[in-house]
Formats: sequence, structure tokens, C-alpha cells
Amino acid sequence: LSAVLPVRAQAGPLASWHEGPVKTSILDFVGKVTTPSARDFVIADERIAVFDNDGTLWCEQPIYSQLAFALDRVKLLAPDHPQWQTQEPFKSVISNDLAGLVRSGEKGIFEIVAVTHAGMTTDQFDRAVVDWTRTAKHPRFHRGYTELVFQPMLELLEFLRQNEFKIFVVSGGGIDFMRPWMEAVYGIPPERIVGSSGMTRYVVGEDGGPVLIKDAKIDFVDDGPGKPVGIHKFIGRRPIFAFGNSDGDLQMLQWTAAGSGARFMGIVHHTDADREYAYDRGSSVGKLDKALDEAVNGHWVVVDMKQDWKVVFPS
Amino acid sequence: LSAVLPVRAQAGPLASWHEGPVKTSILDFVGKVTTPSARDFVIADERIAVFDNDGTLWCEQPIYSQLAFALDRVKLLAPDHPQWQTQEPFKSVISNDLAGLVRSGEKGIFEIVAVTHAGMTTDQFDRAVVDWTRTAKHPRFHRGYTELVFQPMLELLEFLRQNEFKIFVVSGGGIDFMRPWMEAVYGIPPERIVGSSGMTRYVVGEDGGPVLIKDAKIDFVDDGPGKPVGIHKFIGRRPIFAFGNSDGDLQMLQWTAAGSGARFMGIVHHTDADREYAYDRGSSVGKLDKALDEAVNGHWVVVDMKQDWKVVFPS
Ligand SMILES: [Ca+2]
Ligand SMILES: [Ca+2]
Repeated sequence: LSAVLPVRAQAGPLASWHEGPVKTSILDFVGKVTTPSARDFVIADERIAVFDNDGTLWCEQPIYSQLAFALDRVKLLAPDHPQWQTQEPFKSVISNDLAGLVRSGEKGIFEIVAVTHAGMTTDQFDRAVVDWTRTAKHPRFHRGYTELVFQPMLELLEFLRQNEFKIFVVSGGGIDFMRPWMEAVYGIPPERIVGSSGMTRYVVGEDGGPVLIKDAKIDFVDDGPGKPVGIHKFIGRRPIFAFGNSDGDLQMLQWTAAGSGARFMGIVHHTDADREYAYDRGSSVGKLDKALDEAVNGHWVVVDMKQDWKVVFPS
Repeated sequence: LSAVLPVRAQAGPLASWHEGPVKTSILDFVGKVTTPSARDFVIADERIAVFDNDGTLWCEQPIYSQLAFALDRVKLLAPDHPQWQTQEPFKSVISNDLAGLVRSGEKGIFEIVAVTHAGMTTDQFDRAVVDWTRTAKHPRFHRGYTELVFQPMLELLEFLRQNEFKIFVVSGGGIDFMRPWMEAVYGIPPERIVGSSGMTRYVVGEDGGPVLIKDAKIDFVDDGPGKPVGIHKFIGRRPIFAFGNSDGDLQMLQWTAAGSGARFMGIVHHTDADREYAYDRGSSVGKLDKALDEAVNGHWVVVDMKQDWKVVFPS
């Protein structure tokens, strides 16, 4: 096996990853589960790989992109809702008063989600998301959000795909927010995207055409202990490969680690304030604390963004 | 295109289907959505096909197989629960008193589901299902339940697979009841099985190993209007091909029909009391009434089991 790996590396998988223990551990793991004669060989059907999204596949700072979408959407809808000019939490959103929004608390966030993510058909929401990905720009990088995906992780997805892994996103983000763009950006089709969701209702409209209406009631929260639950519900098979970046991924990584045979557990550690952001234990977005301790104890692979990645975003 | 179809037919797809309008409509539909030059061509990524299970892919009479599993399991567990000998609904189950079971109503069924489908880990339930499929016999045919799948439908699954369809089961049955055996029997992997589910909880056991515990609380009912909801939730893309057999499939078929481009909506009509069963509008299991009317109005394809199928079960 060891004779094969240098050839693979020369052939160019993971080109944006610096040589080192992290890159080697990925190549080594994929090599041993895909080599039929190896003790750790896994048939292609069972090569389940799961990836968190925010902070693992794309940038999640300074606020989650889905929250940026919701705030942008409030502003877009504001002309039709003149009362929002004086009504919280909308007033704060419209005037870019993030402190005011924070003061409105969970109730405020829920009201924003309700008006931006519910009360419309699934097709209408889909179009709203696609429109936003085409127009919205990140406040620091001045690029579209779907351009702020991590180039080394795109190469990892491609490398796993070439090795016949079944790749799933397992994210705390909204499933309906992710599906409209992930196939084009990550090459991951809608049926392999697991996320949080609201309730949906089947309604036959007055013209006889059926629609699905998005309601404001929460259906499923795919975060923390919800991630292994979501994996069981949507995938029905335990992953052998999992990548996350925060304490919200702890249970997904534990669940992956607890299976039999070879496993890979990886964490993206944001250590690069110059090219992206540097944050971990003290961050309100993407807090990485318990999972970092458990990574050390469990010998999980921790990516040091600054050291391990030649580039962060696609050029 | 029409020049191609006779060749395909001679080459042998759908060998257990009699020549006739039903077989022709299947071959015709698959031909036109897979021929790149055809107006109705659909790229492989979007060739979503959904199949109901009970009564569509396998026999559902005289009682749903999952209910047979539950009743068998009550009997298996009875020695550890001596109180069940005198306590309904268990007493009726143990003494094979189906009328007594019916008298216990929904509450009785719920109690049976609670003791047979909950209070254990997902791995334990998985093993219970596999053990049952290996040992239980159907009361009339004296064969294992997974041998009472419909041979013509197995050939249809294979034909669609050869034509790069993504095939999903969308069933009112329990997702955890279906996944342990469907990959071996239908060639459909766990992540392409959508069904009803109970709540699941992630628990880190005393030995530190995490488990998922099945609870008795209902999470999702994948039946009737729940089927398009389940399709949206689990698949995230509208099917172009749907097959069902009862009013529980009506909304799934409507949802499929309402998409743009070429669509195929099929219904298995059980018309063969000799080889299987004959039932439709008056049946308590697999009632086919409104969906049969809508099939006629919408020119959906109705399979006449007696006329269209050379054989019913695999030999
Ligand atoms: Ca994350
Ligand atoms: Ca059925």
C-alpha cells in the first residue's frame, strides 16, 4: 500500500493541501478502505462520508450565511411591509443595527425566520435562495457566498468521489436553503443533503395544482445530538468518514468513531485570520471547544487552516 | 424512437410482463426520457423514480407484513412478559384472536408497536427485523415474506436502474423496518428508502459507547399527503416516475403528475385472486378507490395483475 500512495500524491489529489501529517492521513485512510486486499477494505456501497457545511465546506463568519440571507431578504421584502420601519426585530435589520437584532433575542430571530423561510411554496423559496446566491456579496471578501467555499475541501470531495464514496452534507443549516445550490457548487445532489427543516404541508391549490407550503413550525434540528439522529433518519447507515469544525459536530464525529473497522474523523480548525478567520473556544459562531478536546484524546485529524492549506478560496 | 423500442423489447427487459399497452407505455416512457435527442430527454441526475412498497413491490395481504412482524415479535417476547397472557391486546395476539385484536383498536395497535418497535437501540431493532425475514412464513403461500415480492416489479426496478434512474422507495411502512432487507431484495440502498418513523434519541451509554434509542413517539407518517412531504424532505427533487397501488399513493402520484415534462404514473391493480389477491375499493388493506378514479381521469397506467403479469412471485 505504501508504495501506491506517493504515486497517488504525485498524480495530484488534494493539490491545495500542503504535504504533512494531515494530507498523509487522508490519503492513507482512503487508500486502505479502497484497496480490496487491505484488511480495512470497505465495499463502495458502504463508503459513507459526511461533511458539516458552515465552517467546514464554506466560510461561516462574521455571521452564518443563512442568517445573512434572511437579513437580506427582510430588506428585500421591506417595501411591502411599511410597518417594519418601526417594528422590531425588522427595524434593526433594515437599519443594519446588529446590536438591536441581538437584543431581540431568539424571539426576534424566530420572527425573521418566519417571514423569510415560511408562508410560501417550496418552489418560491427555492427561487429566493438561488436569486440571493447570484447577487449577495460577503461584507469582507466582496465575493458571492458560494465563491467562499474552501478549495482544499472541494478537492477532498472530488478525491472521495473518485474513490466511490457516497458523500453527504449533514448540516445544522436549513435543508431547503442548501439544496438549491449545492449540486452546482459541491457536486452533491439534493438527496444527499441532510439539514434542519421546518414543517411542510401538501395543499391542492384552487387551480387544482398541488403545492408544498413551508410553515414556520420546526420539524427537525440537525445539530449536536441531532446529527447522528439525522444520519440514521436520512442515510440509514453509519459513516466511515466525517468532517466538522465545531462542537455541533461532536456527536456526529463520536457516532462515526464508534463504528467498527477503519474510520476517519476530521476537524477544520480556523487558524488563519489573514486569509479567512481565526476562532475556536470563545467564538459565538462555530464554537470549537469540547470537540477539540475530544479530537486530541481520540486522535482525530485536526486541520490547521494556516499550516495545511495552500489556498483557502477558489481563485 | 419507435424503431428502437422493439429492439429493446426483444433484448428482454420486463420479461415477465405480457406484451400490451402497459408494457409498451413503460418502454416508451423510459425510451423518450433517456434518448438525448428526444424532446422529453431528462439528464440522469434528475431521473427520480419512486415506488410505494406494500402492495406495489410485495404482497400486503391478508395483513401488512410489518403488522405480521409485530405480532410474531409479541409472541417471541411473550415468555418474558407473563402478564401478557391475560392483558389485552397481547392476550389476543398470543392466542391468534384477530377479532380480539381488532376490538383493541388504535390503542391496542399502538401498544403493540410500542413494545415491538421501541425501547431498544436501532442496531437491536435491525437484528430483530433481519431474524424475522429469515424465519417467518406467509400464512397462505408458506414462503418467507421477502420471497413474496413481485417478479415483474423487480424487473422494472432493474430496467430503470440500467437506464440510470435513481430509484427510491416511498412507503407508509416503517423506515427502520424496510432498510435492513431492501438492498439485498430490491437492490435499493438504505439512503434511498423513505418511510414512516418514530423518534430516535442519541444516548452515550455507561461504557462510553453512543447508541440511538428508538422511542414510541411518532416522528413522521409517510402516507397520503405525507408522501409528497416525505419526497421533498428526503429526496428534494420531484419524481418523474411514480408507482403505487392504493389511495395512500394518491398525493404522491398527483405530485409527480404536476411536474413539467414527461411523467409516468402507474398503479398496480390487484385483480388476481388465484395467484395473489383481488381487492380494490372495498378493502381495508390497500384500499384503491379515489386513486383509481384519478388514474382513469388522468390517463395514468393501471396494471391489471391478472392480464399484465406472466408470473407474480419469483420462482
Ligand atoms: Ca459548522
Ligand atoms: Ca401500498
